Amino acid sequence: MLLVPLPTILIEPIVRQTLLEDLGRAGDITTDAIAPAGCVARTVMAARQEGVIAGLDLAALAFKLIDPAIRFKTMLADGASVTPGTAIAMIEGPARGMLSAERVALNFVSRLSGIASATAKLSAAVAHAKARIVCTRKTTPLLRAIEKYAVRAGGGANHRFGLDDAALIKDNHVAIAGGVDEAIRRVRSHVGHLVKIEVEVDTLAQLEEALIAGIDAVLLDNMSLDDLRRGVELINGRAISEASGRVNLETAPAIAETGVDLISVGWLTHSAPILDIALDLLD
Amino acid sequence: MLLVPLPTILIEPIVRQTLLEDLGRAGDITTDAIAPAGCVARTVMAARQEGVIAGLDLAALAFKLIDPAIRFKTMLADGASVTPGTAIAMIEGPARGMLSAERVALNFVSRLSGIASATAKLSAAVAHAKARIVCTRKTTPLLRAIEKYAVRAGGGANHRFGLDDAALIKDNHVAIAGGVDEAIRRVRSHVGHLVKIEVEVDTLAQLEEALIAGIDAVLLDNMSLDDLRRGVELINGRAISEASGRVNLETAPAIAETGVDLISVGWLTHSAPILDIALDLLD
Amino acid sequence: MLLVPLPTILIEPIVRQTLLEDLGRAGDITTDAIAPAGCVARTVMAARQEGVIAGLDLAALAFKLIDPAIRFKTMLADGASVTPGTAIAMIEGPARGMLSAERVALNFVSRLSGIASATAKLSAAVAHAKARIVCTRKTTPLLRAIEKYAVRAGGGANHRFGLDDAALIKDNHVAIAGGVDEAIRRVRSHVGHLVKIEVEVDTLAQLEEALIAGIDAVLLDNMSLDDLRRGVELINGRAISEASGRVNLETAPAIAETGVDLISVGWLTHSAPILDIALDLLD
Amino acid sequence: MLLVPLPTILIEPIVRQTLLEDLGRAGDITTDAIAPAGCVARTVMAARQEGVIAGLDLAALAFKLIDPAIRFKTMLADGASVTPGTAIAMIEGPARGMLSAERVALNFVSRLSGIASATAKLSAAVAHAKARIVCTRKTTPLLRAIEKYAVRAGGGANHRFGLDDAALIKDNHVAIAGGVDEAIRRVRSHVGHLVKIEVEVDTLAQLEEALIAGIDAVLLDNMSLDDLRRGVELINGRAISEASGRVNLETAPAIAETGVDLISVGWLTHSAPILDIALDLLD
Amino acid sequence: MLLVPLPTILIEPIVRQTLLEDLGRAGDITTDAIAPAGCVARTVMAARQEGVIAGLDLAALAFKLIDPAIRFKTMLADGASVTPGTAIAMIEGPARGMLSAERVALNFVSRLSGIASATAKLSAAVAHAKARIVCTRKTTPLLRAIEKYAVRAGGGANHRFGLDDAALIKDNHVAIAGGVDEAIRRVRSHVGHLVKIEVEVDTLAQLEEALIAGIDAVLLDNMSLDDLRRGVELINGRAISEASGRVNLETAPAIAETGVDLISVGWLTHSAPILDIALDLLD
Amino acid sequence: MLLVPLPTILIEPIVRQTLLEDLGRAGDITTDAIAPAGCVARTVMAARQEGVIAGLDLAALAFKLIDPAIRFKTMLADGASVTPGTAIAMIEGPARGMLSAERVALNFVSRLSGIASATAKLSAAVAHAKARIVCTRKTTPLLRAIEKYAVRAGGGANHRFGLDDAALIKDNHVAIAGGVDEAIRRVRSHVGHLVKIEVEVDTLAQLEEALIAGIDAVLLDNMSLDDLRRGVELINGRAISEASGRVNLETAPAIAETGVDLISVGWLTHSAPILDIALDLLD
Repeated sequence: MLLVPLPTILIEPIVRQTLLEDLGRAGDITTDAIAPAGCVARTVMAARQEGVIAGLDLAALAFKLIDPAIRFKTMLADGASVTPGTAIAMIEGPARGMLSAERVALNFVSRLSGIASATAKLSAAVAHAKARIVCTRKTTPLLRAIEKYAVRAGGGANHRFGLDDAALIKDNHVAIAGGVDEAIRRVRSHVGHLVKIEVEVDTLAQLEEALIAGIDAVLLDNMSLDDLRRGVELINGRAISEASGRVNLETAPAIAETGVDLISVGWLTHSAPILDIALDLLD
Repeated sequence: MLLVPLPTILIEPIVRQTLLEDLGRAGDITTDAIAPAGCVARTVMAARQEGVIAGLDLAALAFKLIDPAIRFKTMLADGASVTPGTAIAMIEGPARGMLSAERVALNFVSRLSGIASATAKLSAAVAHAKARIVCTRKTTPLLRAIEKYAVRAGGGANHRFGLDDAALIKDNHVAIAGGVDEAIRRVRSHVGHLVKIEVEVDTLAQLEEALIAGIDAVLLDNMSLDDLRRGVELINGRAISEASGRVNLETAPAIAETGVDLISVGWLTHSAPILDIALDLLD
Repeated sequence: MLLVPLPTILIEPIVRQTLLEDLGRAGDITTDAIAPAGCVARTVMAARQEGVIAGLDLAALAFKLIDPAIRFKTMLADGASVTPGTAIAMIEGPARGMLSAERVALNFVSRLSGIASATAKLSAAVAHAKARIVCTRKTTPLLRAIEKYAVRAGGGANHRFGLDDAALIKDNHVAIAGGVDEAIRRVRSHVGHLVKIEVEVDTLAQLEEALIAGIDAVLLDNMSLDDLRRGVELINGRAISEASGRVNLETAPAIAETGVDLISVGWLTHSAPILDIALDLLD
Repeated sequence: MLLVPLPTILIEPIVRQTLLEDLGRAGDITTDAIAPAGCVARTVMAARQEGVIAGLDLAALAFKLIDPAIRFKTMLADGASVTPGTAIAMIEGPARGMLSAERVALNFVSRLSGIASATAKLSAAVAHAKARIVCTRKTTPLLRAIEKYAVRAGGGANHRFGLDDAALIKDNHVAIAGGVDEAIRRVRSHVGHLVKIEVEVDTLAQLEEALIAGIDAVLLDNMSLDDLRRGVELINGRAISEASGRVNLETAPAIAETGVDLISVGWLTHSAPILDIALDLLD
Repeated sequence: MLLVPLPTILIEPIVRQTLLEDLGRAGDITTDAIAPAGCVARTVMAARQEGVIAGLDLAALAFKLIDPAIRFKTMLADGASVTPGTAIAMIEGPARGMLSAERVALNFVSRLSGIASATAKLSAAVAHAKARIVCTRKTTPLLRAIEKYAVRAGGGANHRFGLDDAALIKDNHVAIAGGVDEAIRRVRSHVGHLVKIEVEVDTLAQLEEALIAGIDAVLLDNMSLDDLRRGVELINGRAISEASGRVNLETAPAIAETGVDLISVGWLTHSAPILDIALDLLD
Repeated sequence: MLLVPLPTILIEPIVRQTLLEDLGRAGDITTDAIAPAGCVARTVMAARQEGVIAGLDLAALAFKLIDPAIRFKTMLADGASVTPGTAIAMIEGPARGMLSAERVALNFVSRLSGIASATAKLSAAVAHAKARIVCTRKTTPLLRAIEKYAVRAGGGANHRFGLDDAALIKDNHVAIAGGVDEAIRRVRSHVGHLVKIEVEVDTLAQLEEALIAGIDAVLLDNMSLDDLRRGVELINGRAISEASGRVNLETAPAIAETGVDLISVGWLTHSAPILDIALDLLD
C-alpha cells in the first residue's frame, strides 16, 4: 500500500479547529508577552523515542495557519523510522507563531506517530506470515481519517471508514435477523453492487453458514488458534479471512501463522500511547 | 472538586459531528438492511474491566441524536467505579438507531473512562500525600473540554484549558526573554488581573529567581526527588508547587511525598488506554 | 432494495441551510405582513403529474424547522406512485410558517420525486430483463445523499457515493497507468480489503485484459449492443457487468436484453425534470 | 444586464463543501493508487453540445482548492456560446488533483451551462418582442445564488432572490387577506421604502383591483393570450407586467407578443438538462 | 409597520454562538461550584431605565438553549414601553442554567432595547410631520438582522438589509460613473425588475439630474434645511425623499418639517447606548 | 500592557461572516453595475473625529477577503491617536472590491476605535492615580475578543474573557450559597490551581468576610467614595481591589483617588459611540 498524503482540503478544518481550541478567545497570552514582534526562532522537531513518524502535514499546517512566514522543512517523510534524537523537521520563522502552534503541532505528530509505531511493531511481528494488520472503527471521535492514515503510515491496512462504505454484519445483527444466512440475504438485497459484505462469526458452524450463503469476507472473532486454522481451511480462498480479539505483540505471530489474511486490532487507534516527540530551540 | 456535568450546548456539536463522521453519506447500510422499521431492542452497556466511568452524557446524546425514541437509563453516574460485568446503562428503543449509534457511544465512554480510570489509579497512588493529580494541554485534538472533564471524573484536577486562560512560562519562553526574572516581568505587565502566572523551572537557581520575582505557581520540571524536596522548602508556601516529568504509578508516590501541591501528567490524556466497555443485546 | 429513511441527523443540515437561503436576513416579508399571528391554515400537498414520490421527510422537516406547531401528515410514503390530483400530505397549523416554508418544501419534494419518477420509468422499461438501473456521481452539488436516496425510491440502485467508497478506474486512469492491467494492479495493492474495484473499458480487448487481471465489476462504456452481448459472454459471471452511455427510455430495453447486470444513467440525477407538485389551501 | 462574476467569498464555501462531499473520509482512492506524486497532466475542458457556458469560476476554484499548483486557463468567458468540440479551458498540473476534482468541476459547469443554455434559447425565442426571460425561486436547494447567476449568463434576468428582498403576494396570501386590495394594503404598510411589491393575479378583475390599490409589478399567472393582451392594455405602463405558467419554447413567442415586460419560467432552474461538457486528456 | 417576531431558525445560531463565546471550554465555573444540581431559582428581568423593549425572544432562547427546564414568562412584548422598575419577564427553573445564561440574555435585551428606545425617542420627535425614522447599514457586525428588528420595535422603518436587496448609488459610485445620470443608467440596466434604486445627492443640481433620469428614491445627504425644502418641492412626489446627516433629537424636528418622507440615522445602530436592564433574584 | 495583534486565524471568521452578511445572495449590485472590471481606485481612510484607532487588521482583512489585489497600507498603528483629518490608511486597487468592502471595513474600525477612544479618555481621567480602567463581560454578542482587544488598544486592561477563565462570585451567587464565606469556599474547592477568584461585595462587612476567607480580588460594587477608601484600607494589599458602578468621566477621578487598583466599566463595550471614520476617493 502506497502512502499518499491526505488532501489539504480534508485536514485543514481539523488543524484550524484544533488551533482555535487552544487559542481560545485571547490567544497565547504568555508568548504574546514575551516574544517581541520581530523575534525569529529556529527549532528542531526531534524524536525522543524509537518509532515510525506520521502526521507531518498536519504539523506543517498548524505552523502555516498561525503564521505563513514560518518555514517547516521536513528531514524525513511520514512512514520513516526514527530513533531517539532523530531530527524530523527544522522550523524557522517568527517566534510568536512558532511557540503558539508548538503544542498543537506536537499533539498531532506524537499521537499519529504513536499509532504508526504500534502498527509497525505489530506488522513486524507477523512479517513471517501473509497476514496484514488492519485497524477498526474504534477510532478517536473526529479523527478517523487521520488515524486511518497513520495506520497506513505504519504499514497497516484500513478496514472500512464508516458505517456506509462496506457492510459488516456483527453478532447483534445476526441475532436480530435470526441467523447468519438470513442476515447475509437481507444485506445483499439492500446494498449496491460496489459494496463488499463481511460477516462476523464466532463459531465454525456460523462460518459454514456464511460460506454457503456466499460472502466477501469473514471476521473470525475471538476464536482459538485451532478454530482459526480450521476456519482458514474451510474458507479455502472463497472469502477474505480476518481474525480479531485479544491481539497483541505476544499473540499476533501465532494468529498470523493460522493463515488468516488479516488481523484487525482496535488497540492501534484507541489505546496506542503517543510517540514522544519534542521541539527544541536551536542556538 | 465537584463533578458538574458539561452543558449540553458544549458537547452536542462534538457528538453530532462524530455521528456524521461514522454515518458518512449513506448511513448504516448494514443495520438498515437487517433491522425492520418497527424492531425494538434492549441492550445493556456493561464494563469488561475494572475502572472509573466517564462520558455517559455523551453516550446518551449519541443515541438521542440518532433517534429520540431511544431511552438511555444510567445505572450509575460519571465518576463511579466499576468491575467487570457492572451494568452501566440500560438502553431500550428502536433497534436501528441503537445499533447505528452503538460504536460512537462506546468510543466516547470507553475513551473518557480510560482517562478517568488512569487518573483514579494515579490519585490513589498519592492519596497518602497532599498532592493532587492534574492533566496538561497534551490532549486529543478537538476533545480537550471532554478529556479535562474525564480527568475530573477520575478525581484529578485541571491545569489550564488553553493558551489564553493562564500564563505558563516554559523553557523556550525563558530562553527568548533571556531569563526567568525578565520573562515573569514581561508577562505580569501584559496579562489581566485575573490571570495567574506559572513558570517552569529546571533548577533550584531558577526557582529562587522566580520566587524573588513573585509568581503564582512553579512547575518543577524533571527534578530529582531531592531537588523537589528542596524546592518545596524554598517555596515555603509562597507559590503553588507542581511537579512534572516521568510520572507513573511507580514514581508518583515518592514524588508526592516531597510535599508538592500538584503532579501533572500528560500521559492521562495522550496515552491512557481505553476502558473496555461493551453493549450486550438482552433477551 | 428496501427503502429505509435517511437519518434525520443527515438531512436536517441540508433543510435548515436551504430555509436560511430563502429567508435571507429579513425573513418572509410578504407573509409576515399578511398572515396575522394566530391565523391557522390547512393545505394539501398534491401531485399535478404522474410519477413516484420521494423526499417527504425533507418537506416535513422544512415545516417543522420553521414552526414545530405545524402538523405534516403524509397520505402515502416515499416510493409511492401518484397521478395528477393524488393527495400526498395534509398540512395544518400556523399559516405564517406554512407559507414561509412552502417553496422550500416543494423544491425538495418536486426535485427528488422527479428523480424517483425518471428512475421508475427507466426501471419499468427494463423490467423484462435482469438489469437494474443505477445512478452515477453526476449528482447535484451538495445533494448527493438525498439524490441517491431518490434513485432508490424510484426502484433503482446506487453506484458509489464518492471517490472513497469504491475504486472506479476510468479511461484517464488507464492512460496514466499505461494500461488496464497495470491500473488494476496499482489499485488492488493500494485499497483495503473491503473496497471493490471496477474498471471502465471501451473495447473487448480491454475487457479481456481486465478479466485476466481480475476485477469485481466492469463498466462497458458506450459499446454497441453487439459488443455488450459479447462482453457479457466473455465475463461469464466472473465480474459484475455495467453498461453506460446513451441510455434513455428508447435504448434501455435493448441494452438490458444484452444481459448486463446494471445500466448506469447520469441523466437521472443531472437532468431529470422535476415532478409537478403543489400546495393547495383548503377551505 | 452586465455579467459580473460572483465574488470568490460567496462561491468558495459551495465549491469547498462539494469537494468534501465527493472526497468523503478517504479521498480519491483510485487516483491516489494510480497517479504517482510527480505525474503531470494536460487536459482540455470541451463542449459536447451546443449551448452557453456558465460556471467557469466554480470549476477553476475546484481545481485550485484541491491543488493550487493546477493552472486553469479559460479559452472563453461565461456567457459565451459553444458548439460540440469547442475548447472551454486548458488545465495543466499535477494529475492527482486534476483527476480528483474533475467530476466536481464538471458537475458545476455542466449544470450551470445547462441553465444558461436554456435561458439563451428561450430568450432568443422572444427576441422579437420586448419581454425578458426571468427565473423564479424554484431553484436547487443551496445553489440559488449560482443558478441565478447562470440565468444572467444566458441573457435572462433575475426575479427576487428570496423571501426577503421583495414582496410577492401570491394566491394563498390573497386568500388569507381576503382580497387583492387588502393584501396589498397590508404589505405596503409593513415593508421598507426600498422594497418593491408584486402581486399575482389570475383574473382581469383582480388585476384592476391591484392597479387601483397601486402596485410595482403584477404577475399574470396562467392567463390566456387574450387576457394577457387585455391585461397589458389595462396596466398601461402603471406597473411592470410579468407572465407565467406553461411557458416553453413553443408558447413563449406568442406570450411575448402580448406585450408583457417579463416572462418568468421555473423550468430554467428546476428542470433544464445539463450541457454535456467533458475533460479530455491531451497527449 | 407590524412587529412580527423573527423566525427562531434565524436567531438561534446567533444566540447559540454567543452562549458558546461566553462558556468557553470549561463553562461557568463559578456557578457550577456554587449552585447545587437541584437548586431552583426565581428571577425577574426588570428595567432600570425608561425606554422601549426589544429582543425578548433572544433572551428566552438563551435560557432555553442552556437548560430547557427554565421557564421564561414575558410580562410584556417587544415594542412595549417601560419605566424604571417595570417587570419585563419572570424566569423560573434550575439556578445553574439561569445564572450561566443571565449575562448573554441581558446583553441581547439591553442592546436591542437601547436601539429600540433611541428609535422611539427620535420617532416621537418627528411625530408631528410625516417623516419616518429609518436605520442604515452601519450596524454591528453579525447582528444586522436583529438590530434592524430592534429599529422596527422602536417604531422605525428599515433601509436595505445589505448590498444586494436594493441599489444605493453613493458619492463614490457617482464619481466612478462620471455623473448621476450615467450612474443611474448603469444600475437600471443591471438590476432585476424587483429592485428599487436610490441615489445619494449632495446638491439640488444632482437631484434634478436624478429626477430626469428617473429614480425610486433620493437620499438628500447633509443638505441645509432650505435645500431639503426645495428638494422636496422639486421631487414633487416623483420619488421617495430621504434626508441624512447630522440627525439628532435637536435637529430632527426641523428636518422632518421640510416634508421629507424618511430620515435615516446611522447612530441608532452604531452608537445608541444600551437600555439598563437587570435580573433580580426573588425570595 | 503591550498591544499584540490578534492572530489572523481568530479574526478571519468574523470578518468573513460579516462580509457575507452584507453581500447577501446577490452581492453588491450597485457597484457591480457601475464599476467596470478593470477600474482601479485610490482611497484614504481618514478620521473625522479625535480619538484612538483600533481594528485596522480587521479592515485590512475585509478588503483582502473581497479581493486580494487590493493593497491596504496603514499610516499608523492600532492605539495611535488621531484628530479630524488624520489619514489612517491608503487603499489602492480594483474599485469593485474596494467599494463592496468599504462599509464592513468602516463598521469594524469605527466601532473598535470608538471603544478604544472611550477607554483612552477614561484612562487619561485617572492617570494621576494608580487605578487602571478595565472592561467587563457586557460586550457585543460575538465580538468579545475584538472588543477586549480594542480596550487594550485604548490603554485599558481586560477583565475575564468568559465564564470559564476566572471565577467571579456575584450577588446572586452569594445569595444562593448563603454567604460570602461559603461561596468562596465552594468555588475554591472546585476550580483548578490556575484560576483566580474574585468576589463582588456591596458592603464593608462582606468585604471583611471575603478577606478572612481569602480571595484574589474583590469587586467593590456601587460603594460610596468613603466606603471605597475604607475598603482599600481594609484590604491593605491582601487582594486586588476593583471598583464598579456609576463610572463616567466625571466620577472616575475621585473613584481612582480612593486608591483602588482597577475601575471596571461596562459602558466601554456596551455603549461607547463609534469614532467617525470615512473612506475618501482620491483624484
